[in-house]
Amino acid sequence: MPEVLVELDRTRPGLAGQLTCALRAAISDGRLSAGTRLPSSRDLAGELALSRGVVVEAYEQLSAEGWLLARRGAGTTVAGRPPRTAGTLSGTAEPQSPSGGTERSPRADPVAVLRPGVPDLAMFPRADWRRAYERALRTARDADLDYGDPRGAPQLRAELTGYLGRVRAARIDPNHLFVTTGAAQAFGLLAGALRQRGATTVGIEDPGSPGVRGHLTANGLRLVPVPVDADGLDVAALAASGVAAVLVTPAHQFPTGVVLAPHRRHELLAWARRSGRLIIEDDYDAEFRYDRDPVGCLQGLAPDLVAHIGSVSKALAPGMRLGWLSVPPDLGPAVLAGKAAADLGGPVLEQLAFAELLGSGGYDRHLRRSRLVHRRRRDALIAALRRHLPQAQVSGIAAGLHLVLRLPAGVDDTALAAAATRAGLGPVPLSATRLDLSPAGRPSGGRTTAAEPGLVLGYAAHSPGELASAVQLLAGLMA
Amino acid sequence: MPEVLVELDRTRPGLAGQLTCALRAAISDGRLSAGTRLPSSRDLAGELALSRGVVVEAYEQLSAEGWLLARRGAGTTVAGRPPRTAGTLSGTAEPQSPSGGTERSPRADPVAVLRPGVPDLAMFPRADWRRAYERALRTARDADLDYGDPRGAPQLRAELTGYLGRVRAARIDPNHLFVTTGAAQAFGLLAGALRQRGATTVGIEDPGSPGVRGHLTANGLRLVPVPVDADGLDVAALAASGVAAVLVTPAHQFPTGVVLAPHRRHELLAWARRSGRLIIEDDYDAEFRYDRDPVGCLQGLAPDLVAHIGSVSKALAPGMRLGWLSVPPDLGPAVLAGKAAADLGGPVLEQLAFAELLGSGGYDRHLRRSRLVHRRRRDALIAALRRHLPQAQVSGIAAGLHLVLRLPAGVDDTALAAAATRAGLGPVPLSATRLDLSPAGRPSGGRTTAAEPGLVLGYAAHSPGELASAVQLLAGLMA
Repeated sequence: MPEVLVELDRTRPGLAGQLTCALRAAISDGRLSAGTRLPSSRDLAGELALSRGVVVEAYEQLSAEGWLLARRGAGTTVAGRPPRTAGTLSGTAEPQSPSGGTERSPRADPVAVLRPGVPDLAMFPRADWRRAYERALRTARDADLDYGDPRGAPQLRAELTGYLGRVRAARIDPNHLFVTTGAAQAFGLLAGALRQRGATTVGIEDPGSPGVRGHLTANGLRLVPVPVDADGLDVAALAASGVAAVLVTPAHQFPTGVVLAPHRRHELLAWARRSGRLIIEDDYDAEFRYDRDPVGCLQGLAPDLVAHIGSVSKALAPGMRLGWLSVPPDLGPAVLAGKAAADLGGPVLEQLAFAELLGSGGYDRHLRRSRLVHRRRRDALIAALRRHLPQAQVSGIAAGLHLVLRLPAGVDDTALAAAATRAGLGPVPLSATRLDLSPAGRPSGGRTTAAEPGLVLGYAAHSPGELASAVQLLAGLMA
Repeated sequence: MPEVLVELDRTRPGLAGQLTCALRAAISDGRLSAGTRLPSSRDLAGELALSRGVVVEAYEQLSAEGWLLARRGAGTTVAGRPPRTAGTLSGTAEPQSPSGGTERSPRADPVAVLRPGVPDLAMFPRADWRRAYERALRTARDADLDYGDPRGAPQLRAELTGYLGRVRAARIDPNHLFVTTGAAQAFGLLAGALRQRGATTVGIEDPGSPGVRGHLTANGLRLVPVPVDADGLDVAALAASGVAAVLVTPAHQFPTGVVLAPHRRHELLAWARRSGRLIIEDDYDAEFRYDRDPVGCLQGLAPDLVAHIGSVSKALAPGMRLGWLSVPPDLGPAVLAGKAAADLGGPVLEQLAFAELLGSGGYDRHLRRSRLVHRRRRDALIAALRRHLPQAQVSGIAAGLHLVLRLPAGVDDTALAAAATRAGLGPVPLSATRLDLSPAGRPSGGRTTAAEPGLVLGYAAHSPGELASAVQLLAGLMA
């Protein structure tokens, strides 16, 4: 192992936690640099005289957080350029990793071509937002600048209630709607409320978003993978798992893009009603539909069973850190107390500005513009794939900001993605979206991974020309 | 007890937590309305067939959170108008209470005269802030709008490092500086990092800020009161307490206004160095000094021992939810992971705008203006007190946004403050700043409370005229 000081206090419990902290520290302050290969869990366990399970747990946690990268065959290495990696691995895609750590240069990195989970930041509606913010600043009452409602400005919660009802067929009660610091905080608040109820496990779609997985783990929940097929989440498998809650992306599953089939929706709601469990709906890119009608959200069918999470990260920009969480009434008080304990609520002026943007119709206009652009880019990406990789199949193209490129069985998608990253591209290997990518590995997952290699390709952030050259480059790497 | 459904699942552990949740829910959705008197812990315990300790624990938690008000003699009642109560109880004073609960009207309440812990919201520099925000929005790089560093925008961390060094004699390493959603989040992040180290207790100044106390409790730390005398925190008592960390307000103790004496600073730092414990410096109103030189912060004397917390809540407005936390290097990784797990960082545009305001000198100009205004208002309040309450002594006047009016022994300051609140004023009873105000009560604290009644009076938010009439009104209530 590279020379790194790992201090463990064996008189205290939680050796895995101590090891995790020590390694995280070493990476964050550069003592362990990107690309450095770590010893196998067995070797490190031997070196530190720890049980192997302790090391595996630390590696799993740090992989989930995006600090480490586990590659079948290639062992465990320190993740390269956390910001891109993290952002890349995102559906709602709020990476758990520190997005850059201490050595991040003030000059931020541009978005890598084909990186999924991020919109075109150049399309951020600066003029509209400036007008909305100015108006909010001009019209805010002095009292609005005082300590406010931790749930967020009443004006924004009212606008969001209307918007989500109109666009997502949601049935929100503003009393149980929380404005959050991005979807990330929404996941954390829900995890806290669930733990308070004594829940320790959450079912997650497999494949699914590693960013969201890392986030739930970091907030104290144990993940239980539930398979996804062409109809979406396998509810029978879910019911058998005995989890306290399940996180789903019904409108556009990440990464496969499948829509949760009607019969599955009903089975899922029946499961929740029967077992008193919670459905967490991650509506991460619901605004973007191309070849089919939008799918209404689950929450609208059963507000008492579904917690609904959304954000402006895909529609405006992740850096806004602006999201929302609607919870069933029985979770309201716990989430309210959690939000108050976390930060007493978010910045009021940006909340009022977003209320202005929604109320003025500016948000709808921006979404319409974006949809056209995204569609053109998606078509360009598909055309380029047909031209340069005729043998490959493409799926999940009807909506969202990314699609899935299926690769011939036997192709090592992780190695391919790594090569593409070195070439400046940002695709995500399909195998990285499976839960088994921790150093511990899980045979079943392992089998699936081997069976279905692929790449998750984002198309929203770049021009047709950039996408075409990127695909050409990618094809070259596969030749 | 008023008709309230309290459902307890006796098959699950944590009955106190369940009771706390049930009562919080009943208050938040209005089933238990403000002013409602709750049965004694003994009676409720009897009714619900619980041990009295369980009920006491729930009452204590809800009092700390600001949902309940415990009045010596008058028993426990549902707190009136949480927003004002909460705000009122503030040093850095970030109330744990939901500031309004579900029935908060969109028309926010104006600040009550004499309420401490809040600046004059009408003085918020809207024009300067608009310019700073516009410039930030115009000059931000597209990449700045992507997922960023959870610690906050590098530009702001650089500006803050310079500002805190210049104004507070702090020695900050921007790598260990975090931009937070107000001081509230900073307390939460520190509490989390301490718990991760296995720490469970934190020493707090007694008297001190109930808002901060509730916040630390809500974030899982047990509070240990440490007495404050004319030289500030009693370090000998602290050393005897064996706590893992201590929260202090060295520059201007809340509420007494005393400055931590030089010999105490040295004793405190020696304690931390000797025992490896953490000092948490709450620099809540450090910008405001009138009759004496500013006192440099503790952090500058020992960056490796002191976590430093500040915010713009007193200098700009609490609704900005903008604060900062500087931690010793060894806490950096844990706090970074905690911040990433909490929200992946705050809104980038307001961070860049604050960097602009700092860099342009606009923040300094605003502070100079505010200082003059505050000083005039303080003088007006003192003059009015001399005129209408000649017998009362005033202390803690050299700095900050509030002073302490000492009342003759035997006066019930809680009842007086309640009467003043009914009359539309916002003073805080000195006894409410003591730790023993929970229904359980603590004899020692009880003795102190009885011995030193008083009122904490804020003067920053209102004109000399408003302050004078408020004092006249107050004097009438005491006559």
